[in-house]
Amino acid sequence: MTPADLALAQRLADAAGEAIRPFYRAAFDSEAKADASPVTEADRAAEAAMRRLLDAEAPRDGIHGEEYGVKEGNSGRTWVLDPIDGTVSFMAGRPIFGTLIALLEDGWPVLGLIDQPIGRERWIGAAGKETTFNGAPVHVRTCPELSQAVLASTSPNHFTDETGHRFMSLAAKTAHSRMVWGGDCYNYGLLASGQIDLVVESGLKLHDFAALVPIVDGAGGLMCDWAGDPLHAASDGEVIALGDPARLEDVLEAMESIVPGHEHDH
Amino acid sequence: MTPADLALAQRLADAAGEAIRPFYRAAFDSEAKADASPVTEADRAAEAAMRRLLDAEAPRDGIHGEEYGVKEGNSGRTWVLDPIDGTVSFMAGRPIFGTLIALLEDGWPVLGLIDQPIGRERWIGAAGKETTFNGAPVHVRTCPELSQAVLASTSPNHFTDETGHRFMSLAAKTAHSRMVWGGDCYNYGLLASGQIDLVVESGLKLHDFAALVPIVDGAGGLMCDWAGDPLHAASDGEVIALGDPARLEDVLEAMESIVPGHEHDH
Repeated sequence: MTPADLALAQRLADAAGEAIRPFYRAAFDSEAKADASPVTEADRAAEAAMRRLLDAEAPRDGIHGEEYGVKEGNSGRTWVLDPIDGTVSFMAGRPIFGTLIALLEDGWPVLGLIDQPIGRERWIGAAGKETTFNGAPVHVRTCPELSQAVLASTSPNHFTDETGHRFMSLAAKTAHSRMVWGGDCYNYGLLASGQIDLVVESGLKLHDFAALVPIVDGAGGLMCDWAGDPLHAASDGEVIALGDPARLEDVLEAMESIVPGHEHDH
Repeated sequence: MTPADLALAQRLADAAGEAIRPFYRAAFDSEAKADASPVTEADRAAEAAMRRLLDAEAPRDGIHGEEYGVKEGNSGRTWVLDPIDGTVSFMAGRPIFGTLIALLEDGWPVLGLIDQPIGRERWIGAAGKETTFNGAPVHVRTCPELSQAVLASTSPNHFTDETGHRFMSLAAKTAHSRMVWGGDCYNYGLLASGQIDLVVESGLKLHDFAALVPIVDGAGGLMCDWAGDPLHAASDGEVIALGDPARLEDVLEAMESIVPGHEHDH
């Protein structure tokens, strides 16, 4: 990962933002994918714009995009693209979705970018560097007690019975009245900026979480899976982001709690 | 309600926005109220600024504010103020909270304003007028089938067992994969702008919903309580906002459904 990679990532985000903005709060076609998530013209236009740039400027790198799939490379490097993370927010007209761009080296995310093209907000993280927000360094905040932690998660609908159970067991031990719902990648940016303490989600794909890892790491936070292990290309999509790494044991312990007799059937 | 009232409402929103912006994403004191919701310096500064203007320019009108309570008037008119609706979003640094300003005449909301002071977005509704967003008329969208409706609600944590049950019964009949969580007043503005079809919440206070009624009405939508009755000063805070009034019977019917044997204990 070089300064040229960072510059390229910024130009990818610029191109995606230009492709996305005309569709925001405009009428557009949507169609159902196999998994019923909404796909928009904006999604496709933004990923196509990024792939054109990569094909021209980094032809040996692989590409792993949400919309147009995998292009194999031969450099040991892969660009992971999610043109619109938070499609539901995008379609509802909320300026808290984002374009995610990550660079993997040997399967590990070494560069990550979250771009919010309406508010023109951009977080960038890179291995060995401080995370920045619109060019200025940002840092997570400390969290002396789990009971003070502001927890965020995109939707309760994304959990299964078992993961929902573990999530609720954790949520009950955090600052419950201040819990944040909705937000997708934007929540991880806010965590890096010291506004949120904890994000816990499951069912994320590589393109949903790869870019977040260097951003949270470089702001002094920690990202891992629900077992506490580091995230990489083969992780299963159960994700924890923690502003204050000193709370990791508390979080993992709270998620282990089994509440007997509380089986849910929906 | 006169053109002068509309102009005054806009100046109230300007004053609130000026008071709020310096606190956004800044460190500030917060303290727990009896109901454990966060109170911020920004909340108080914004309401104080609005009350100063009202005391000077509409001294006979009553004031009903979230932070500083009730001032009785003798004009039959009451200004209802919520300086920061969506305090959780505000404290997390998300630009989807809002300042709510309503004017009640004989207990009925005849003027409503939602102001988002970071994105500088403003919805205004007034009895007998078209709702506007940043000065341009907006309109709800049609929704031919409940199964296509995009439903929004701020948090599952706000429901009781019984209201949560009725909500989930409704949610299952809407476009579930596109459901929007989080958002508070901002969701009602987006409904007026034709981006969302349905918002259903419970536990709202007068200052949470009064401003929304003229905005949704003036955009061609409908607001009512969970029994389908119009909202006024004495309503109990169970709120439905519907973009396409033709779907009202479908919504009320879906919320009546009793699912036997699905009692929840959390």
